[in-house]
Amino acid sequence: MAERVESRVFRGVRDLLPREMAARQWLIERIRGVYERYGFLPLETPALEHLDVLTGSAGDEASQSIFRVRNPDDPSDEQPVDRLGLRFDLTVPLARVVAQYRDLPRPFRRYQVSPVWRADRPDRGRFREFIQFDIDSVGVESNVADVEIMAAMCDTLSALEVGPFRVRFSSRRILNLLLRYAEIPDTLIVRPRRTADSPPGEPVERAGADVFRVLDKLEKIGRDNVRLELTTGYADKSGDWVPGLGLSGEQVDRIDRFVSIQGDRRAEVLKQLSALFADVPGAADEIESLSDMSRQLEMLGYGDDRVALDLSVARGLAYYTGPVFEAILLDAPQFGSVFGGGRYDELVMRFSGEKLPATGASIGVDRLLAALVHLDRAPKRTAAAQVLVAVVDRPMMDEYLAMTFELRRAGIAAELYLGGKGMGRQFKYADQLGIPVVVVYGGNEKARGIVVLKDMQAGLARSAEITDHQDWVRERPGQTEVPHGEMIPALRKLLGEIEGETSKS
Amino acid sequence: MAERVESRVFRGVRDLLPREMAARQWLIERIRGVYERYGFLPLETPALEHLDVLTGSAGDEASQSIFRVRNPDDPSDEQPVDRLGLRFDLTVPLARVVAQYRDLPRPFRRYQVSPVWRADRPDRGRFREFIQFDIDSVGVESNVADVEIMAAMCDTLSALEVGPFRVRFSSRRILNLLLRYAEIPDTLIVRPRRTADSPPGEPVERAGADVFRVLDKLEKIGRDNVRLELTTGYADKSGDWVPGLGLSGEQVDRIDRFVSIQGDRRAEVLKQLSALFADVPGAADEIESLSDMSRQLEMLGYGDDRVALDLSVARGLAYYTGPVFEAILLDAPQFGSVFGGGRYDELVMRFSGEKLPATGASIGVDRLLAALVHLDRAPKRTAAAQVLVAVVDRPMMDEYLAMTFELRRAGIAAELYLGGKGMGRQFKYADQLGIPVVVVYGGNEKARGIVVLKDMQAGLARSAEITDHQDWVRERPGQTEVPHGEMIPALRKLLGEIEGETSKS
Repeated sequence: MAERVESRVFRGVRDLLPREMAARQWLIERIRGVYERYGFLPLETPALEHLDVLTGSAGDEASQSIFRVRNPDDPSDEQPVDRLGLRFDLTVPLARVVAQYRDLPRPFRRYQVSPVWRADRPDRGRFREFIQFDIDSVGVESNVADVEIMAAMCDTLSALEVGPFRVRFSSRRILNLLLRYAEIPDTLIVRPRRTADSPPGEPVERAGADVFRVLDKLEKIGRDNVRLELTTGYADKSGDWVPGLGLSGEQVDRIDRFVSIQGDRRAEVLKQLSALFADVPGAADEIESLSDMSRQLEMLGYGDDRVALDLSVARGLAYYTGPVFEAILLDAPQFGSVFGGGRYDELVMRFSGEKLPATGASIGVDRLLAALVHLDRAPKRTAAAQVLVAVVDRPMMDEYLAMTFELRRAGIAAELYLGGKGMGRQFKYADQLGIPVVVVYGGNEKARGIVVLKDMQAGLARSAEITDHQDWVRERPGQTEVPHGEMIPALRKLLGEIEGETSKS
Repeated sequence: MAERVESRVFRGVRDLLPREMAARQWLIERIRGVYERYGFLPLETPALEHLDVLTGSAGDEASQSIFRVRNPDDPSDEQPVDRLGLRFDLTVPLARVVAQYRDLPRPFRRYQVSPVWRADRPDRGRFREFIQFDIDSVGVESNVADVEIMAAMCDTLSALEVGPFRVRFSSRRILNLLLRYAEIPDTLIVRPRRTADSPPGEPVERAGADVFRVLDKLEKIGRDNVRLELTTGYADKSGDWVPGLGLSGEQVDRIDRFVSIQGDRRAEVLKQLSALFADVPGAADEIESLSDMSRQLEMLGYGDDRVALDLSVARGLAYYTGPVFEAILLDAPQFGSVFGGGRYDELVMRFSGEKLPATGASIGVDRLLAALVHLDRAPKRTAAAQVLVAVVDRPMMDEYLAMTFELRRAGIAAELYLGGKGMGRQFKYADQLGIPVVVVYGGNEKARGIVVLKDMQAGLARSAEITDHQDWVRERPGQTEVPHGEMIPALRKLLGEIEGETSKS
C-alpha cells in the first residue's frame, strides 16, 4: 500500500452509523408498509442520468444543483448531449420512465425510495446526498388521486408515530384565480428605483406569478413589508433595496383580502373564498373541486384536525399545476415541511409531448428523522443481535460456535464474541451495541450442566467494573441460571420480557 | 417547458420496473434477514467519496473504473485532493469508516446494501451501476470469523432458494507457500521474445505472484498453454505473442503437482496438500488453519456437498491476505461467482496506519437475480395490491373510495381504479399488474346488498374479451357473490386460497 490517506467524507455528505441506520430503516419499512397497502408499485431508476433529462432546458434553475459526472464514453466531456449528472429528485426520472416505457400500466402508481444529490451549499440538516421516499399516480386526472395522496401522507405520519402533525393543502389554480381577481397581468414591468448617485435602471419584466414568491415570504418578512414589496419596494434591514412589483393600492387590497382568509375549518375557508371570488370567472368550478376533496377527506376520517385548507401553501417547484400539499410536525415546525407534493400535469410532456396528468408527494426521510431525533421520538431500535455468546474459556471455542448457530437456527439473532480477551470487555461490547442478553458458559457452568443468562439492563452498573471471570462468578449481577437443555425457551421468555419493557411498538 | 428531451438511460445503467424491483426487494429482505440473525449491524456510507479515498494511490488499477464527479466547491477541478468519485465497492468505504470513527465497537461487524458504480465497458449482465450486499467482520484475527462468513454465504443462498450451490474456499497464504515450494523468487525477470523483424525487448520485472494470474486462466486457456505461459511463452490463437514468465521445468512440475490436488472431500485435499508441502517451512501451520476451518464447518453442518476446499480459488482483488471464498450456482455456472470475498488484514492500514484484521463477503444481488431469472427461479412476487376496487358507476365514486379505505384499514392492500372507462379495461389493468381479485359493485349489486369478488386467474381468459358491464353481468367468469357486510372475511378467505396456490413460500 502507498502513502496514508486521510479518512474523511466530502462536505455535505455523511455516514449513517448503525444506530441511525437502524432508525432510518425502521422509518423506510413503516412507510413502505403504508404505500404497499395503497397498492403503489416499487420502481428503481439509476442515479446517473443524462444531463439533459435532468435539466430539460439548459437555463433551468435546478441545473445549478446538479452534480456533474464525467462520461467515460466521452472523457473529453465535449458532447453536450452525453453529459451526465446525478438525479436531484425522483419525479423527473419518473416522468422519463413513463414516457420511455409505453407498455407500463396506466394509471401508473409507483413508490420509490432512493438517494438524491444536490450540489447546494450544505447547512445544518441540509445534506448534499439524502434519501427521498416518493409516491405518485401518473395518468389520473381525477382529484380523487390527490385525496388519496393526502390520505397516504396522514396514514404514513401516523404509522411513524411522529406526534401531532398537520397536512395543509391549496391549489395553484386558486392562486391563478387570485391574479385574475386582483387584475394582475401576466407580465409586470418593474422599474428599479432611481437613487441620487445612480442613473435610473432599465425596466425589467417579471411574471405576474412573481406575486406568489412574495406572498411566500409572509411568515418571514411580515405583512407590511410584503405590501411594500408588492408596490413601491423597500430597504431591508441591511439597507439593500428590495424592488417593488409596482402593484396599485387597489390590487394589493385585493391580495390582502385573499391572504386574510384563514380558518381552522376547511368549510369556513371555502365559504369565505366563495364570497371573495363570487364574480371571478371560473372560480366556482375550482372551489367546487376543493370542496369535493374536502368532503371526501371528511368521509374517510381525515378531519380538520389533520388536514387544513391553507391558501398560503404554494410550494417551491415550478412544475406544479393543481393541488399542492405539505405536512409539518406541530411540535417541530422549525423543521418546515417534512412531506410535500402536488399535481404536475405537464411534466411528462417534456419527454413524450403527450399531456399526462400526475400527482404525488415526497417524504424527506432524513429531515424527518432529524426532527424525530430532536423530539426524542426516533425509533430506538438497534438492529443488533439479541444475544451475545461470551467466550469464557478459549479452548471451548467450538462449543460457543455451535451454541451460536443453535440460537440462530432457532430464530434468535445471535453473535459470538470474537474480540479481545476479558469478561468485562465482552459486557461492555454488549452494552455498546445494545445487545440485551449475554450467554455465559465456562468450565464451571459446563460441569454443572447449566448456562447463565445475563440481562444487561439489570446488571449494567456493576458489570462495567468487573474484569475477571472469578469476580463475576462471585457476584453475578442480573443473572439467571438455566439448565443447558432449556437455554432456548428460557432465552425466548427473557427476550420477550425485555422487549415488552423497552421497545417502541 | 422548452424543447422535447429524448427519454433514455445512459449506456450500462438501467431502470428496474415494478416486477424486477419486487424480485430484487424480496432478495434483499431475505438476505437482510439472514445477516440480522447473525448480528451484523446496518451501515450506510455516501455514494460520493473523495477520489484519493477510493484509489489509495493514483496508480491503482481500480481507479480506471471510477466515475469522476465534479466538486462544486472546486469547479475548476484543479485540486487533486478535492476530486470526487462514486464508490466502486463497499469494502473501501468500510475501511475508511473504521479508521475515521475510533469509538465504533470492536469487533465491528456490519452489513451494507447499496449501489456501486464502475465505469467499465458494459456487457450482458455487467452493469455500470449495481447493488452489492456485503457483510464484514473488522477487528477479528481468528479464522472463526471466516468460518462464520462462509456459513452466512450458505445460509443466505439456502434462504434465497437458488437451488444447488457450492461455496469454494482456499487461502492466499497457501498460494504464497506454493511460491516457496516451487522456489519462485519474489521478482521474476521476463525477457520479451526476440523476433526476426524486431530487436530484443528490454527485460521486464514481474512479481512472483504473477504466477497466480496465469493459474487463474486454467479453465480458460487449458493446462498446456498455462505451462507455456509459465515458461517460454506462446503465440495465442490470434497469433499474438504471450510472453512466458521464464520458470524452469522443475518449477512448473511443482506447480503442476499443486494444481493436480483436487477432491470432492476437504479432508482428502488437505491430506494431499500436507504430503506435497511436507518440507515447506510454515506450511504445517497454514494447513492446520484450513483444517480447523474445515472441522468447524463440518461441526456446524456445512459438509463437503456445500463447501469445497478448492486450491484454484484466488479471487481477483489485490487486497486479500488470507482465506478467500466464492460461491457458484451449480445449475448456472456460466454466471460465475455470485458471492465472493476473503480476508484483507491490511486494507484499514491505508487510512489509519493501524493493522486491523478484517474478513467479509459481497453478494452481487443483480447478477444473482439475473441467474435466477435465467433458471426461472426468481421470486414471482409483484408487490401489487391484493384487491382492485372497480369503478362500475362513476356517480358511486364516494362509495368506492370508502370501500377502498375500509379494505386498507383491514390490512388488505387495495387500489381504487382511477384510469379510463370500461370494465374490460379495468380487468386488463388488474391482470397486467397481477392484482388477484377485483371487487365489482354497481347499482345492481347495491340494490341486492351484495358485492361480487372476481378471481382474476379463474376468469382471466374470458374477461379480456368483455368490454361492457352488461355482458359481464350475464357471464360473470370466476365470480363469487357475497353479502356486502361479509366482504372482508370473504376476501381474506379468497386471498388465502389464491396465495396457497401460487406464492413462492
